Amino acid sequence: MSQKSIRIIPLGGVEEIGKNLTVFEYEDDIIIVDCGTMFPSEDMPGVDLVLPDAAYLYKNADRIRGLFITHGHEDHIGAIPYILRNFVCPVYATELTKALIEFKLKEHMMDDKVKVTCVEPGDRVKAGCFTVEYIHTNHSFAGAAALAIHTPVGVIVHTGDFKIDFTPVDGGPCDLNRFAELGSKGVLALMSDSTNVLRPGYTMSEVTVGKSMEQYFNDAQGRKRIIIATFSSNIHRIQQIIDCAGRHDRKVCICGRSMTNICSIAVKIGKLNLPESMTVDVSNLKSVPPEKLVVITTGSQGEPMSGLSRMANDTHDRLKVGPNDMVIISATPIPGNEKMVSRTINSLCKKGCVVVYEDVHVSGHACKEELKLILSLTKPKYFIPVHGEYRHLMEHAMLAESLKIPHENVFIPAIGTVIELNKSKGKMKETVPSGEILVDGSGIGDVGNVVLRDRRLLAMDGLVIVIITMAAEEGVMLADPDVVSRGFVYMKESEVMISEVKRMVAEYVEGADLSDRDWNALKAGIKSMVHEYLWQQTKRSPMILPVIVEV
Amino acid sequence: MSQKSIRIIPLGGVEEIGKNLTVFEYEDDIIIVDCGTMFPSEDMPGVDLVLPDAAYLYKNADRIRGLFITHGHEDHIGAIPYILRNFVCPVYATELTKALIEFKLKEHMMDDKVKVTCVEPGDRVKAGCFTVEYIHTNHSFAGAAALAIHTPVGVIVHTGDFKIDFTPVDGGPCDLNRFAELGSKGVLALMSDSTNVLRPGYTMSEVTVGKSMEQYFNDAQGRKRIIIATFSSNIHRIQQIIDCAGRHDRKVCICGRSMTNICSIAVKIGKLNLPESMTVDVSNLKSVPPEKLVVITTGSQGEPMSGLSRMANDTHDRLKVGPNDMVIISATPIPGNEKMVSRTINSLCKKGCVVVYEDVHVSGHACKEELKLILSLTKPKYFIPVHGEYRHLMEHAMLAESLKIPHENVFIPAIGTVIELNKSKGKMKETVPSGEILVDGSGIGDVGNVVLRDRRLLAMDGLVIVIITMAAEEGVMLADPDVVSRGFVYMKESEVMISEVKRMVAEYVEGADLSDRDWNALKAGIKSMVHEYLWQQTKRSPMILPVIVEV
Repeated sequence: MSQKSIRIIPLGGVEEIGKNLTVFEYEDDIIIVDCGTMFPSEDMPGVDLVLPDAAYLYKNADRIRGLFITHGHEDHIGAIPYILRNFVCPVYATELTKALIEFKLKEHMMDDKVKVTCVEPGDRVKAGCFTVEYIHTNHSFAGAAALAIHTPVGVIVHTGDFKIDFTPVDGGPCDLNRFAELGSKGVLALMSDSTNVLRPGYTMSEVTVGKSMEQYFNDAQGRKRIIIATFSSNIHRIQQIIDCAGRHDRKVCICGRSMTNICSIAVKIGKLNLPESMTVDVSNLKSVPPEKLVVITTGSQGEPMSGLSRMANDTHDRLKVGPNDMVIISATPIPGNEKMVSRTINSLCKKGCVVVYEDVHVSGHACKEELKLILSLTKPKYFIPVHGEYRHLMEHAMLAESLKIPHENVFIPAIGTVIELNKSKGKMKETVPSGEILVDGSGIGDVGNVVLRDRRLLAMDGLVIVIITMAAEEGVMLADPDVVSRGFVYMKESEVMISEVKRMVAEYVEGADLSDRDWNALKAGIKSMVHEYLWQQTKRSPMILPVIVEV
Repeated sequence: MSQKSIRIIPLGGVEEIGKNLTVFEYEDDIIIVDCGTMFPSEDMPGVDLVLPDAAYLYKNADRIRGLFITHGHEDHIGAIPYILRNFVCPVYATELTKALIEFKLKEHMMDDKVKVTCVEPGDRVKAGCFTVEYIHTNHSFAGAAALAIHTPVGVIVHTGDFKIDFTPVDGGPCDLNRFAELGSKGVLALMSDSTNVLRPGYTMSEVTVGKSMEQYFNDAQGRKRIIIATFSSNIHRIQQIIDCAGRHDRKVCICGRSMTNICSIAVKIGKLNLPESMTVDVSNLKSVPPEKLVVITTGSQGEPMSGLSRMANDTHDRLKVGPNDMVIISATPIPGNEKMVSRTINSLCKKGCVVVYEDVHVSGHACKEELKLILSLTKPKYFIPVHGEYRHLMEHAMLAESLKIPHENVFIPAIGTVIELNKSKGKMKETVPSGEILVDGSGIGDVGNVVLRDRRLLAMDGLVIVIITMAAEEGVMLADPDVVSRGFVYMKESEVMISEVKRMVAEYVEGADLSDRDWNALKAGIKSMVHEYLWQQTKRSPMILPVIVEV
């Protein structure tokens, strides 16, 4: 008799870093781990966000027993307001994560609909046949957790995003003992963060950043204002900056929308200690001498609308920077953002700021030796690398095999792949419907391949609209063809070429057999003729849009 | 009596890495150093190339005595076929550089018009009042040179792009002795490569790459085909690969358009030693067992149309890659290309290739200690950092000051800034007309800010065209308004919204006072009304294009 199996289906977060969402199902019960978004890639112009396609969940909505969030970064919580429009289930998260989710739900006017329950490390939550246990880890987010998912066929450990910090700023080191206990009792499968698997050794402790900051504060002592850009969700980093400011008798100004939002939430729930007496509002900066001030702001990735970019570009309404400022960029560029960060640094340097970006950041993700440690402690039967591009997943798989996990027990899933596991065997099965859903403005999923292809085409060479006015009955032109263009050439300097287009279109229409009033054929003919002429003239391929007006 | 001065005007290559072009003028004589292009930035969709604006040269064409090229990279020679359309002057370059320029001129059918003269290190060329001396350096290009420009007011040393390689693959180490001699006799000004000024220490020798290659060839021995992507212009790198292939009894296949072009030029002039007997044509790969083959190809930057990208994406017509391939990416991503390179690596890994990119590349640019050495040897009175973004120039300036060059003798120019120097004083003066000229297809300079702004707008949210047909005389609508859209929403799923646009436009036109037939006012009204409605419906701002057809 074949054993029943648990099915694990990543709907995002594999072969990519972003939009994490994993489905666990056993018989009639489904639980979900994380529900995140991803930034659009550069071939998705105008798109604001990318969501995992959760059609599989919508179809099985009545079986969903809970959504378990490992921590509050956007790639783990960002899709909640979009996906939880389509079904109702309880959501579980640790304290700061819960607060951020609730803030987000409020923004989407969904706070009435979705209930988030606070869990502490060590807590166990029953959800159908599953019991989900939260385990304390370290990460660049306060209150990150791994999950031990107790299922009828064994325990599955999901690390979430993690590193091992023996001297964290707050909350104690990653609960290695619990990983060890689970390993000793037997872990069916381990799913582990692959982000930093290509990096040898260990990730440095967060406190090392505090030590560098202290040094830079000493350098700036009595002379310069200090402006620090970092990730708004890294509360421990922000706490270290505040503590440093306190020691150096500087006031703190929190600046930038997301920085202000997250800090005020964190202060409210007691996760960030920022005494009222130390703070200065951005509207009141003049009340404090610059050398007695630290500004904490967004923009560590060079994002165009962020606090730091606006300071660099002189478009910040409250803050002008110059030779009396030391700017600390406490982050490394996320791949793809290198040029934007460079641009910001160059602009700040030109204004005379001292710009510092060495030794003021550590990663939130485990490196190779830490990953080996977790593999060794948990001794899983099966291993599934997650949270990485393909090359990260592959390297992590090879790492697991080097620690004697048999090759056939290591699975590298694609998005939508079903992995079926039980005590005696595991395999990759079919793929469920899955993919990406694009959010643009208030539209969810109404921008797809056709719209994006058009946007990319329009961006490359612009467009040329050819308007032909026809008498509906007689099939003759009522006016000369008109040509409108945008993003193609300077029209004023191209009058000869545009006149020639009008002339050739008129000639073409007059010579065409329009007895069957086949406007589509007429359009296609005009399109290819104009396309060819403009290519020959300019070596460009603008989009040609023939429009026929029937009067 | 005030001394006459030399004027140095960078028209490109400062506050940016790319499109190097520097003007030197003394009384009636002008010489130019380098004439390069730059890749368009991501906010220039559809643009193929960026040139320096050389209007200043066109105005002074009769005074130009020569163009001196330091080496044959695109950012030093790419603009020659564009800029030398507008004036005639002799061009000087070392052997491989000359061959590449001539190839380029031929492609542009300008080989009759422009004459390139070959110079050797040590040669001196007289050009008006200037004498330009070529000095051998090391770089990722065979035959790179620094220039000692002997002028009536003193010697100006321009390093070009350089590093100091004591064990180069060919051509001997950088001629430090000549730099020292010039320094002992007195150098008026040094202009030096700032690319790697932020990196401490020394750049590794090119031969270290050969040693790593050897190791990887050993690993692959008898088992795997080896595919190596690198820069086609790095002849020394390619020579090392060929030599390695020879030692390991492998044949060499040169693959990719620019790789084939440059290699065949280099072989022809004797700069690359690739015995006929060792080569295999890409059309004939089946004739050699894979484990006896090395493929050298383009695509080290993940460029979509390159050899390696096509192999990774299964669109290469001659070469399929898989588990029997070791792919060596012998380059580091140029800032901005990180994501494209990652994508290529992921695709290759998914196909089962072993992908190697560690220790198989060294930079072609000098690091901090090398830059100090050149500053120390040449002992210039004035220092002008070049070839770098602002932060590089600033760091290099600070480095020079740390070596006791007085602050007032260090100049950080912007593009177009005139630096005036003589033996007693130096200063930054006015700015000459300068900037960037965009090449798109066959058009040079006909794409500018307006066209680019339209392309960016079109890319973000697409466009909506509203067509209104009016009777020219009576000022009444002759047909219902029509709406055409691209890149905005799926039209089929947005019928209600589009109908509403048609309805509101019809209502608006019917209610408008058209007695003065002020179509512009009518268009503006329609535009803002439709914009507002669509924003409220979708939170998107497509470009709205009202078109009025008069019959």
